[in-house]
Amino acid sequence: MAKDVEVGGEFQAKDYHDPPPAPLVDGEELTKWSFYRAVIAEFIATLLFLYITVLTVIGYKSQVDPDKGSDECGGVGILGIAWAFGGMIFILVYCTAGISGGHINPAVTFGLFLARKVSLVRAIFYMAAQCLGAICGCGLVKAFQKSYYNKYGGGANSLADGYSTGTGLAAEIIGTFVLVYTVFSATDPKRNARDSHIPVLAPLPIGFAVFMVHLATIPITGTGINPARSFGAAVIYNQDKPWDDHV
Amino acid sequence: MAKDVEVGGEFQAKDYHDPPPAPLVDGEELTKWSFYRAVIAEFIATLLFLYITVLTVIGYKSQVDPDKGSDECGGVGILGIAWAFGGMIFILVYCTAGISGGHINPAVTFGLFLARKVSLVRAIFYMAAQCLGAICGCGLVKAFQKSYYNKYGGGANSLADGYSTGTGLAAEIIGTFVLVYTVFSATDPKRNARDSHIPVLAPLPIGFAVFMVHLATIPITGTGINPARSFGAAVIYNQDKPWDDHV
Amino acid sequence: MAKDVEVGGEFQAKDYHDPPPAPLVDGEELTKWSFYRAVIAEFIATLLFLYITVLTVIGYKSQVDPDKGSDECGGVGILGIAWAFGGMIFILVYCTAGISGGHINPAVTFGLFLARKVSLVRAIFYMAAQCLGAICGCGLVKAFQKSYYNKYGGGANSLADGYSTGTGLAAEIIGTFVLVYTVFSATDPKRNARDSHIPVLAPLPIGFAVFMVHLATIPITGTGINPARSFGAAVIYNQDKPWDDHV
Amino acid sequence: MAKDVEVGGEFQAKDYHDPPPAPLVDGEELTKWSFYRAVIAEFIATLLFLYITVLTVIGYKSQVDPDKGSDECGGVGILGIAWAFGGMIFILVYCTAGISGGHINPAVTFGLFLARKVSLVRAIFYMAAQCLGAICGCGLVKAFQKSYYNKYGGGANSLADGYSTGTGLAAEIIGTFVLVYTVFSATDPKRNARDSHIPVLAPLPIGFAVFMVHLATIPITGTGINPARSFGAAVIYNQDKPWDDHV
Repeated sequence: MAKDVEVGGEFQAKDYHDPPPAPLVDGEELTKWSFYRAVIAEFIATLLFLYITVLTVIGYKSQVDPDKGSDECGGVGILGIAWAFGGMIFILVYCTAGISGGHINPAVTFGLFLARKVSLVRAIFYMAAQCLGAICGCGLVKAFQKSYYNKYGGGANSLADGYSTGTGLAAEIIGTFVLVYTVFSATDPKRNARDSHIPVLAPLPIGFAVFMVHLATIPITGTGINPARSFGAAVIYNQDKPWDDHV
Repeated sequence: MAKDVEVGGEFQAKDYHDPPPAPLVDGEELTKWSFYRAVIAEFIATLLFLYITVLTVIGYKSQVDPDKGSDECGGVGILGIAWAFGGMIFILVYCTAGISGGHINPAVTFGLFLARKVSLVRAIFYMAAQCLGAICGCGLVKAFQKSYYNKYGGGANSLADGYSTGTGLAAEIIGTFVLVYTVFSATDPKRNARDSHIPVLAPLPIGFAVFMVHLATIPITGTGINPARSFGAAVIYNQDKPWDDHV
Repeated sequence: MAKDVEVGGEFQAKDYHDPPPAPLVDGEELTKWSFYRAVIAEFIATLLFLYITVLTVIGYKSQVDPDKGSDECGGVGILGIAWAFGGMIFILVYCTAGISGGHINPAVTFGLFLARKVSLVRAIFYMAAQCLGAICGCGLVKAFQKSYYNKYGGGANSLADGYSTGTGLAAEIIGTFVLVYTVFSATDPKRNARDSHIPVLAPLPIGFAVFMVHLATIPITGTGINPARSFGAAVIYNQDKPWDDHV
Repeated sequence: MAKDVEVGGEFQAKDYHDPPPAPLVDGEELTKWSFYRAVIAEFIATLLFLYITVLTVIGYKSQVDPDKGSDECGGVGILGIAWAFGGMIFILVYCTAGISGGHINPAVTFGLFLARKVSLVRAIFYMAAQCLGAICGCGLVKAFQKSYYNKYGGGANSLADGYSTGTGLAAEIIGTFVLVYTVFSATDPKRNARDSHIPVLAPLPIGFAVFMVHLATIPITGTGINPARSFGAAVIYNQDKPWDDHV
């Protein structure tokens, strides 16, 4: 744990190679089946992510609803919601890492695009797939549980009372930074060269990062570090408050 | 995390081989000791799974029972129940993966049979062992704690008020899909070829998938993604409500 | 995940060897420094295990004590206690696995002795070190927090009202079986041969097994699957109820 | 899991080598970019650690504040706070292990300095960076949420009523011992030689150790095993009670 970088920096300089930056527009990509498979994988992953997490949020609100005379302590709690988000990211990154790279989150895709790890074309297709998946996931929940969905806010993000929009925005920015920092750290090619099993373990710290950020910021904004999740929930829920907060 | 599939699709095409599909009926299997050992392992695993989880559910209901004047917040909560299910699957898949493949769940066995990973004979024996194990596990709990068992519903699944049977069914189907999707992804031979340690880590995402699905659907149906669990609990509990919901 | 045993049983028969059974009495062992280091490691591990877990239990009871007018929901809950037990076992097995084998629990030592994995001499020394460590760990807590310690039961196990001694005993037996089953499965030499990284990961399922068993049986007996823990707590707490239940 | 040390002690004596002790003052270090990169990594890691955990603590206190008429059970609970601390350490040690060694905690840096794993110069720079990072992290939270920050105690550690300063000190000492013991055990070069993947997995038990210690000692002192965290929170919060307890 100490100082291994000094050694690494000088002697291991050749045991890894940075992949060349991804081209801005890679037309050839569009002709490959693996590209479309990756887009579909992102779509399904985001759909399942939204479905499970929105269901958990609604279920939690239903459990603690005093109007139903239910037990205030019976719900899974904010801790349970944070676990649902972090755990789903862990599973889905694990499942799709080999197919699409396991982005799921447009912010991650955007970050990897800025670092030239994915081409512009791929980034756009991924983000579209993620937003579409998020909308379908929320729509699925709404289809099953229309009354609960509308009653309990549809899992859309909105600012808690007593926080300004600026505070919420800043909290989101730092939260997203923590996540993207973890993703880059876990997928650093230098690292892979030294400890060859990191790719296998990477989903665990990424999932934990999501878990942590939710623990900290759910009380403020409901945590919108995944733009696709906020977008999908807002489209389906379609009410004034979430949209006003977004804009 | 990005684009390694393009490379994989073309150059690594030969570093793994799909095993040949399992024969539909493999008579020879029945003469091997390892086959019976696998069936016994499934039986014990399902028994322990049911024993621990039903005990947790009953213990939780006993803790929060207002008639006993007990502390409403003292129980492990729905979060604790979800952990019990997910954690037991993690342990048992880990322990039995090398012996029987660690199915435990008839839905997983059925999925692997459809994918021709296990023969028909093996699938039938496994499912029978799982159902038998589930019945014995529930019976064991009942034998120890007869009064509590009957009082607190015996851990049998039943629909929460306010949800239609169709909603419950749909929620179960998607939940089971998430689980089987994770299982297939974790045991994909392509994957094993690329990251040779996946089989060791596979129980972790599978256990987490079970944890997530329970977090989301316990408020709706009590989560019956494991048919053996629902069946065993219903057989032992043997009352009208669970059976009506099943049929 | 499916059927790899068939292959393993026939072709991989030589890639592992069962170590010879440990001799019943191995006089030479007593002359080695590594033997005493292992005994000391067991002592320290059990001491830390008892210290952290008893402190958690007492802290929890203090938090929810209505006489102090404190918040009933503020405590870590039974879920937190179960995490404390499971997590400590994970850490301590991880830390001491290379020195003493990471038993910590006399029941595990006894099981490994029956399987002839450890010699009689070593088993006796380990158990003595574990009991001594447990007593010191509880004593440490008592020294720091005498008033709380006595007031909140000292973390000693006692049967909850409404359960017979037989029920408690049976619950403990099955709980200990789950733990020892996981330990044997994780340390099986067959397994190590096939997936060479299992020893590294073994502490995780073992810790999870402890977590699960506590979730299920805390409401019944407070979970005494670790005889050293029950013994230490009972010695230091030294009151009638725990001793009567033990005998 | 049993007795592998006997073998290791005699036959594997040459498959690892203890690195030579770090020099007390290593002037050359100061000329390397990797040294400053490591100091910056420590700064950012401690900043993020403080930001997320203090936000979680404040959010929790805001959720259960009876003056706001909020739900007493709605918060993440002490269990959630313990997860926030343990999980952040897991992520940050994972991310910075390859750059700075992932100390984050001045107590760990001091321990590794005593063991001559890091030079005096490096230890001093690290500790300064950690304290600075802690102050900035707390300042960030205060900047966003000034009113909440002051109202809910700013996440500064203070002794709970009914515990003497000596008790708090002793609890902190043992807690820090558990953490440093785990860190040394996880980074032991003997261990790395035997199981070559330990460095990859080391962040997990370290994070869990932090989680455990918080579960046990939050009710006593709020857990100050990280001096940087206590220092940063006290500087920013700047009120009498935390400072009196520190001195």
